Amino acid sequence: MLNCIGVLTSGGDSPGMNATTRAVVRTALFEGAEVWGIHNGYRGILDGEMFKMERKDVGDIIQRGGTFLGTARCHRFMTPEGRAEAYEKLKAKGIEGLVIIGGDGSLRGASLLSEEHGIPIVGLPGTIDNDVWGTDYTIGSDTAANTIIDAINKLRDTASAHRRVVVLEVMGRHCGWLALMSGISGGAEYILVPEEDFDLEEISNEIKEAYKKGKRYILVVVAEGAGSGIEVGNFIAEHTDIETRVSVLGHIQRGGTPSVIDRVKASQLGEKAALAILSGLSNVVFGFHRGNVVAIDLHDAVTNKKKLDPEYMRLAKVLA
Amino acid sequence: MLNCIGVLTSGGDSPGMNATTRAVVRTALFEGAEVWGIHNGYRGILDGEMFKMERKDVGDIIQRGGTFLGTARCHRFMTPEGRAEAYEKLKAKGIEGLVIIGGDGSLRGASLLSEEHGIPIVGLPGTIDNDVWGTDYTIGSDTAANTIIDAINKLRDTASAHRRVVVLEVMGRHCGWLALMSGISGGAEYILVPEEDFDLEEISNEIKEAYKKGKRYILVVVAEGAGSGIEVGNFIAEHTDIETRVSVLGHIQRGGTPSVIDRVKASQLGEKAALAILSGLSNVVFGFHRGNVVAIDLHDAVTNKKKLDPEYMRLAKVLA
Amino acid sequence: MLNCIGVLTSGGDSPGMNATTRAVVRTALFEGAEVWGIHNGYRGILDGEMFKMERKDVGDIIQRGGTFLGTARCHRFMTPEGRAEAYEKLKAKGIEGLVIIGGDGSLRGASLLSEEHGIPIVGLPGTIDNDVWGTDYTIGSDTAANTIIDAINKLRDTASAHRRVVVLEVMGRHCGWLALMSGISGGAEYILVPEEDFDLEEISNEIKEAYKKGKRYILVVVAEGAGSGIEVGNFIAEHTDIETRVSVLGHIQRGGTPSVIDRVKASQLGEKAALAILSGLSNVVFGFHRGNVVAIDLHDAVTNKKKLDPEYMRLAKVLA
Amino acid sequence: MLNCIGVLTSGGDSPGMNATTRAVVRTALFEGAEVWGIHNGYRGILDGEMFKMERKDVGDIIQRGGTFLGTARCHRFMTPEGRAEAYEKLKAKGIEGLVIIGGDGSLRGASLLSEEHGIPIVGLPGTIDNDVWGTDYTIGSDTAANTIIDAINKLRDTASAHRRVVVLEVMGRHCGWLALMSGISGGAEYILVPEEDFDLEEISNEIKEAYKKGKRYILVVVAEGAGSGIEVGNFIAEHTDIETRVSVLGHIQRGGTPSVIDRVKASQLGEKAALAILSGLSNVVFGFHRGNVVAIDLHDAVTNKKKLDPEYMRLAKVLA
Repeated sequence: MLNCIGVLTSGGDSPGMNATTRAVVRTALFEGAEVWGIHNGYRGILDGEMFKMERKDVGDIIQRGGTFLGTARCHRFMTPEGRAEAYEKLKAKGIEGLVIIGGDGSLRGASLLSEEHGIPIVGLPGTIDNDVWGTDYTIGSDTAANTIIDAINKLRDTASAHRRVVVLEVMGRHCGWLALMSGISGGAEYILVPEEDFDLEEISNEIKEAYKKGKRYILVVVAEGAGSGIEVGNFIAEHTDIETRVSVLGHIQRGGTPSVIDRVKASQLGEKAALAILSGLSNVVFGFHRGNVVAIDLHDAVTNKKKLDPEYMRLAKVLA
Repeated sequence: MLNCIGVLTSGGDSPGMNATTRAVVRTALFEGAEVWGIHNGYRGILDGEMFKMERKDVGDIIQRGGTFLGTARCHRFMTPEGRAEAYEKLKAKGIEGLVIIGGDGSLRGASLLSEEHGIPIVGLPGTIDNDVWGTDYTIGSDTAANTIIDAINKLRDTASAHRRVVVLEVMGRHCGWLALMSGISGGAEYILVPEEDFDLEEISNEIKEAYKKGKRYILVVVAEGAGSGIEVGNFIAEHTDIETRVSVLGHIQRGGTPSVIDRVKASQLGEKAALAILSGLSNVVFGFHRGNVVAIDLHDAVTNKKKLDPEYMRLAKVLA
Repeated sequence: MLNCIGVLTSGGDSPGMNATTRAVVRTALFEGAEVWGIHNGYRGILDGEMFKMERKDVGDIIQRGGTFLGTARCHRFMTPEGRAEAYEKLKAKGIEGLVIIGGDGSLRGASLLSEEHGIPIVGLPGTIDNDVWGTDYTIGSDTAANTIIDAINKLRDTASAHRRVVVLEVMGRHCGWLALMSGISGGAEYILVPEEDFDLEEISNEIKEAYKKGKRYILVVVAEGAGSGIEVGNFIAEHTDIETRVSVLGHIQRGGTPSVIDRVKASQLGEKAALAILSGLSNVVFGFHRGNVVAIDLHDAVTNKKKLDPEYMRLAKVLA
Repeated sequence: MLNCIGVLTSGGDSPGMNATTRAVVRTALFEGAEVWGIHNGYRGILDGEMFKMERKDVGDIIQRGGTFLGTARCHRFMTPEGRAEAYEKLKAKGIEGLVIIGGDGSLRGASLLSEEHGIPIVGLPGTIDNDVWGTDYTIGSDTAANTIIDAINKLRDTASAHRRVVVLEVMGRHCGWLALMSGISGGAEYILVPEEDFDLEEISNEIKEAYKKGKRYILVVVAEGAGSGIEVGNFIAEHTDIETRVSVLGHIQRGGTPSVIDRVKASQLGEKAALAILSGLSNVVFGFHRGNVVAIDLHDAVTNKKKLDPEYMRLAKVLA
């Protein structure tokens, strides 16, 4: 049984991180434990940016995008010496365990800290990419997908007015989940993801045919890991001779007030993580599988690669 | 094996009905079948408002709220004579099976039509209330919950400026799901649902205490089935002597462009329903259970009452 | 020339009040003066809730709805004794002049304080109702109008699905500006405002005719000062026998992140107010007339009644 | 007095074009005239894509982004032969005058058609850039500015979490209006516009200083005409060694449901244009000056260059 824990957010921020932090803090306090908020990710441990938290410190934040704890890169923490120092800093504050909210890379750092110094760690998948192995859901992914379809709604207006091809590059370096969900939702004609081969020449030929038959516009969604939106756009423009426009949404996808799903699931995961670490559990990541909260082995989560559900890819093709 | 099906929307409309219709139509056409769109619900069968559909007839609608097929009440269809006439009208067009998208009441009508005349029926749960037995999800519920938290965000701004109690009445005549999800997401202090008793006097006393301790505002979310927002507001105002404001969101909750979840799940359900009815399946409702698409017995779906997950109620109390 | 001023927000809050406060504070500091933020309106003077402000105290607030300074009713300030006490409290802090952001009633209080004690006062029209005489624009009115048309977009979806009459009650106790702007923007068939007579029986008859000719839905926007939405809805339902639905938007209209217009104009007005009061000007309200910032006599602003531009009323009728 | 007019949209589309078309059509019909909708801009004249319009043909479009009439480039119309042919095509349909909704280039084409063939032309400024001489306002500019600040809200969340510099490239090839309005509204630290020189090295030095003092993030808004967002971002990143992120919003800025301002002003301009052309007026562009609808000489509008109001630039600097 632990009496004092810390919580930090690390890596790229995602909508719902604040809701998660709120749930961790309030659950820990509800259970009578002490809880410290650590600012600016792992760097905050080394820099001593740690603050004891009360209920009201996480008031009025469930609806905020970003993470009020901040996040930062930290090269020192990547080294064994850095992690040893971090461990000492935590001990000095009396912090006996950590809840880490972040993506793949952040969870990997957590795994090393735990292995090397035995401090209990519970991870929560906070990333818009939905690319963490073992969980169907990551915190922020629903909001990001909705941000993208809002952009698609706007692009559709103007594409339809002009009879254009529109290419939209979205986030997802190794994982096409965001492209696939937003592509299905936006009625995209083509969805290019890193997990699957595609032939731009074939696609261009199909587009030319569709235009001849009177199609008003074509929407192509590209995950950044499948290719640069600008290059895809240029290729199609050259091979079809149809006006083509490219938008690169960039970090806008990380912002915004979290959706209901991202607030509720973040709250559920935050609560479970706090209860688990206080009870002495370690080296797990909490996620959702088939609608249930599940505990995934931390090592498995950071060493396995998540696959894209082929069902969605098939659905996209039938309905487009 | 059927060769010709009809699709209609019935009862209160919900965001994602168009995405569902699109998926039914395109899947049926993809499978080589004929598909008729029936306007204005069951009344459209009797009035002969049925139209053969092509792929492009459901283009550019996945993002639209409401239902382009329309929906209407129909007293004639409530009678055995009305249903017999409907059956004849369908036969005359060559329609061999029906996909019905709607809530509890609409599915009950479908059940009777099938029982009395043997016509294959597949139902899909289209209602923002998320109150259909056997499925964790109904089409439109995610969008409605997000519409509500958007309203809560706005109410919070003004409540916080004035140190007020804000009461928000949301939909849900028999089911508190919308109130519960939006309440958790909006950080509501109190969530009143029809499934659970509450004591307004006790709540008023707690509110008075919280104000003395400096709380800037209190948010109370009331499902319409648990009481009138205006009456709840009046009670609290009288018993606390704190300024209290009430908003009744009304049918705004039914509108709006569907969220990613409502577009994707609607597409999945529409596809499954079309495949099922074409293969000769009947008397089932497709829904989601534990993340999977499942087929629920139509009779079970309309005779059982869905329960609210106590986990969410508990979570709301821990985090508020 | 003054060296130290105070700023407060009073009455109903409106989106853009924070942007205004920010502009007042930063301009005053830019000019080398001292500026105090007064919390909770006039009551904050009496309660001594006044804080010296720096640039960063108004950072990250331009996008926030509500008013971080808070606002409150204050009965004591309504009395000569209360105002005398307020004047002493201000003097004690060295505050030589006040910028007051609020509606009609708040500006009236400011006028009395200035008359009775000679303290320089500059008012800014902060109210969503756009009902302050002498200015074409009040801070928050553009955001509120956009909040209403967002609701209308959603109501239209569901009204169109059901062939219904939809009645929307919006704010505006004495002034139909919000109803008129949102009604024109939402393509409302009828716009009921306090400034103009209407005949519900005639309207009901016209609606019945329109339905017979196939109209899919009718939208009626009612300013609260012209009648209760619920009563209007009941009347129409009874006289037409068409299903009618009513939404009462309530305080949602006061919230939300301010629009571009409300941020930019609030910034312009805040800057002008700060410069004016620092230069010794008093008893004026800054507003916009014909696109220019203008100074209106404070007494004129609070004693005259603003009229609705008949051009808009005419336009609504031609285009509906 | 004319009895039959045509209306078309040309060039880049903008939100509010549909509201404008609706107002032109309904006003013309109200006045007893005939009105033709011309599809796909000038090309639609040559291709004969012209359709007689009724009231209901412009129903349910006031809220839609884009332009249902479509717009297209047309090289043939750029030649005297093309315009002569266009004139004949219009005459053949009995169209005696044209209302043209579009930007600078589109109005220039209109000017030539009128000069060469004497057909009455009234222009309306439809472009998000707000760069038409003689009018303070162009249709779509308010919506586009609001789309940009929505993006800024999201970028701010994530920038603040990471302590980053964020560079946002917005539209405006020759005109910094959009950058300036959204920059002021978004509290941007720097706003780079084509109308004013800037020194990236100086800016980089200031940014470095601000970070040392603890600033959490810096927002730089760049009009595309002032430089590429990516190049600006790279320069700052290299000279400050602070993590910098760039977003290029692209055509998203052209889409979305129009704001209240864009719907109401579009309606006013459309009505005035229809009345004017029916009364025989020609060679004018209707716009807004100081809050009034004004008629600008078409030749002046297309030969003069609009200037940015220096007041706004000054305001941005005082408040940032």
